[in-house]
Amino acid sequence: MSQSQILDAYFTENREKHLEELSEFLRIPSISSLSEHKQDIQTAAEWLADKLRALNIENVSVDQTAGHPVVYGEWLHAEGKPTILFYGHYDVQPVDPLHLWESEPFNPVIRDNKLFARGASDDKGQVYMHLKMLEALFATEGTLPVNVKFIYEGEEEIGSPNLPAYVEEHKEKLAADLILISDTGLYAPGKPAVCYGLRGLTGVQIDVRGAKGDLHSGLYGGGVQNAIHALADILASFRDEHGTIQVEGFYDNVRPLSEEERQAYRELNFDEAALKQEVGVTELFGEEGYSYLEQTWARPTLEINGVFGGFSGEGIKTVLPAEAGAKITCRLVPDQDPNEIVQLLKAHIEKHKPKGVEVTVSEFDKGAPFLTPFDHPLIQAAGRSYERVYNVPTAFTRGGGSIPIVAAFDEILALPVVLMGFGLNSENFHAPNEHFHLENFDKGLRVLGDYLHEVSNLKF
Amino acid sequence: MSQSQILDAYFTENREKHLEELSEFLRIPSISSLSEHKQDIQTAAEWLADKLRALNIENVSVDQTAGHPVVYGEWLHAEGKPTILFYGHYDVQPVDPLHLWESEPFNPVIRDNKLFARGASDDKGQVYMHLKMLEALFATEGTLPVNVKFIYEGEEEIGSPNLPAYVEEHKEKLAADLILISDTGLYAPGKPAVCYGLRGLTGVQIDVRGAKGDLHSGLYGGGVQNAIHALADILASFRDEHGTIQVEGFYDNVRPLSEEERQAYRELNFDEAALKQEVGVTELFGEEGYSYLEQTWARPTLEINGVFGGFSGEGIKTVLPAEAGAKITCRLVPDQDPNEIVQLLKAHIEKHKPKGVEVTVSEFDKGAPFLTPFDHPLIQAAGRSYERVYNVPTAFTRGGGSIPIVAAFDEILALPVVLMGFGLNSENFHAPNEHFHLENFDKGLRVLGDYLHEVSNLKF
Repeated sequence: MSQSQILDAYFTENREKHLEELSEFLRIPSISSLSEHKQDIQTAAEWLADKLRALNIENVSVDQTAGHPVVYGEWLHAEGKPTILFYGHYDVQPVDPLHLWESEPFNPVIRDNKLFARGASDDKGQVYMHLKMLEALFATEGTLPVNVKFIYEGEEEIGSPNLPAYVEEHKEKLAADLILISDTGLYAPGKPAVCYGLRGLTGVQIDVRGAKGDLHSGLYGGGVQNAIHALADILASFRDEHGTIQVEGFYDNVRPLSEEERQAYRELNFDEAALKQEVGVTELFGEEGYSYLEQTWARPTLEINGVFGGFSGEGIKTVLPAEAGAKITCRLVPDQDPNEIVQLLKAHIEKHKPKGVEVTVSEFDKGAPFLTPFDHPLIQAAGRSYERVYNVPTAFTRGGGSIPIVAAFDEILALPVVLMGFGLNSENFHAPNEHFHLENFDKGLRVLGDYLHEVSNLKF
Repeated sequence: MSQSQILDAYFTENREKHLEELSEFLRIPSISSLSEHKQDIQTAAEWLADKLRALNIENVSVDQTAGHPVVYGEWLHAEGKPTILFYGHYDVQPVDPLHLWESEPFNPVIRDNKLFARGASDDKGQVYMHLKMLEALFATEGTLPVNVKFIYEGEEEIGSPNLPAYVEEHKEKLAADLILISDTGLYAPGKPAVCYGLRGLTGVQIDVRGAKGDLHSGLYGGGVQNAIHALADILASFRDEHGTIQVEGFYDNVRPLSEEERQAYRELNFDEAALKQEVGVTELFGEEGYSYLEQTWARPTLEINGVFGGFSGEGIKTVLPAEAGAKITCRLVPDQDPNEIVQLLKAHIEKHKPKGVEVTVSEFDKGAPFLTPFDHPLIQAAGRSYERVYNVPTAFTRGGGSIPIVAAFDEILALPVVLMGFGLNSENFHAPNEHFHLENFDKGLRVLGDYLHEVSNLKF
């Protein structure tokens, strides 16, 4: 039997036991956003630490932070071999509205080869796969092909407020050759994906003030500036009719897509017709010269997230509004800098400020974009591991969204980040009836095992 | 003694009795918008009808409508003389917030030569002046110099929903040579005004829809149209940076100001610095080439009254909004037609509709603009009557606001409308502590008496 056949046999033999144990993990209602679950969070951290210890992982600790604890562990006996830092999170989203769940969120059940429970896919199920993959390697090979470290947090669902400080503080302890994160998804059912980039985020709120109070549009209309008109002028100045952002310098530091990347995206044969149906539009709309995937993965955006001002009730109120505001966020791509972009936005607003109003700009939280180069050996190796198990070419993707903690790892630890996830977008993470397709649990274990061998032999 | 001295003496002698009787009228809480005051409305109408009968006014009736009643009466014995139709309203605004009133709203008290009560200025006090002026003429001259008719309604504060139908139905009965309305104000304390024009009103709501639901701005941002961006493009297209309206054909039927009117406005020496301080702006903003008074009295407007879409709570929500909307109203001037303007707005919106969204436009109620020509003999005569009593030149003004019923009279009865009001903008009509400066009650009675003699001898 080959190495992979032996691993395969181990996973098959222990499947029931593994799922039983994962269910134990899923029964702990470790909701990070609700203070009444603080003890459950602690319990989940201890459970995870115990499981690491049971694997002979060393220096396991449950490290307290200003919020929920971080679970650390390491095994560093693969001399001369690379070190993989595993990241994941053991906290989960709230479960409201409870009445929409077909089975209880913290009472895992398997239906149709899908495991239903809060956290099944995001992210306990995937964290647990790391552990079982290592257990299988120890059991069948007596050792690991690489060195490993673990950092599992309990605050991902609330924005990882304390993790950057922890990482900064334990920079040396966390040193590694790459960080492996299983918290993303396949490209589609049966089609695995390596996500090698995520967009960053920055944003501002624009508040416009005209008169000191709302005015009667009959008495004053025509002679005093209207805050909503002024705001509309600013908002309309941000993009042209094709969606191209008009903020001076906005695109200056955008790293162009390589021909290889564009080719890889084209090969995905993205179904725009299906997308239009999904979101309910008759035509898509975006920057000219780029495909939908390029627009949403590799190009920056400027979106108005909200606008408000004046009267919005039923019918008519002939007011000349004194105040209006809008919230704007930009998704950023390498090598845009969130702080620099905010300055460009401010300069643009200042330049386009209409007469007769005061404009205030306040900043939201920022997150840097992240990218491990498409042709990085660790990215390409991950693609090969997926392909060997799923028997189809791996999709190399980027994410249009932002996971600020990924950018923080990238920045603080200066490590290549490899996102190898096994979820599916249809799995209702953050919604009722979260579930995990167990075929991806089964395959994922094999992919991860294969990847550790790949990394063991890789020059990078 | 001259005619005016005799009238003067009558008013002086009967002042206390008149104010006592007006207080009786003001004690009736005839709030038209609150159904629990339906009986009070009826009581106020009957009170008014009784007072008309006491003056030997004939064919007095309290005519029921689908809403609150109309009080009618006539006296037509001034053979060969013009007929004046008097209009006013006996209903009042609600009184909330009650705790801000220094004395009870329906318990009239005089402080500082001001009569405090709901309706004191708007409009019971002014309606009552019509009656007492006629009483004085009957008492001192035994007859009236003109024929008179009365139409007093109880629904002005709720938009006169049933009056146009009533006027239409009783067109012949209401035939007259002019309609005299006392429901406006002086230009400033001590400075009387004849308001010879009012702006009309029309408006639309614009609803923009993109995707079938809000989208994640990370996953879809850059590839799907954002409803707020689309709306902002439409809104910004309505006016240029100077406030000039860009809707094609919008100004086509605007009647230009005559040089006489512009000169009359200039002579008012409008205090722009005081206005800026009043509304709290450092600069005014309006169509170039027109003064503030011209902009707000004689030029049409397009104002966004409200805008809404996406997330408007605290902080950030990275949503790509599927829906956004705005409410827009236009103040119109002669000879703009509200229906035609709505068509122009719709065509403009259609022309400026961005890609990737559906736009729905719905219409609000409309009101035509009204204008009795500045040089009309009845307007100039009103100016002379004011001037003789106040001893300063009368201001000839227009109102920036809209009183739809005035336009309805203008349209249905095809009469010159003369607005001779005696209120002051500072008198808190529609707010707590409404009051009426009694010096204008005293002077107004004399102005009205003088005007009836003016009209009696006028060729027009």
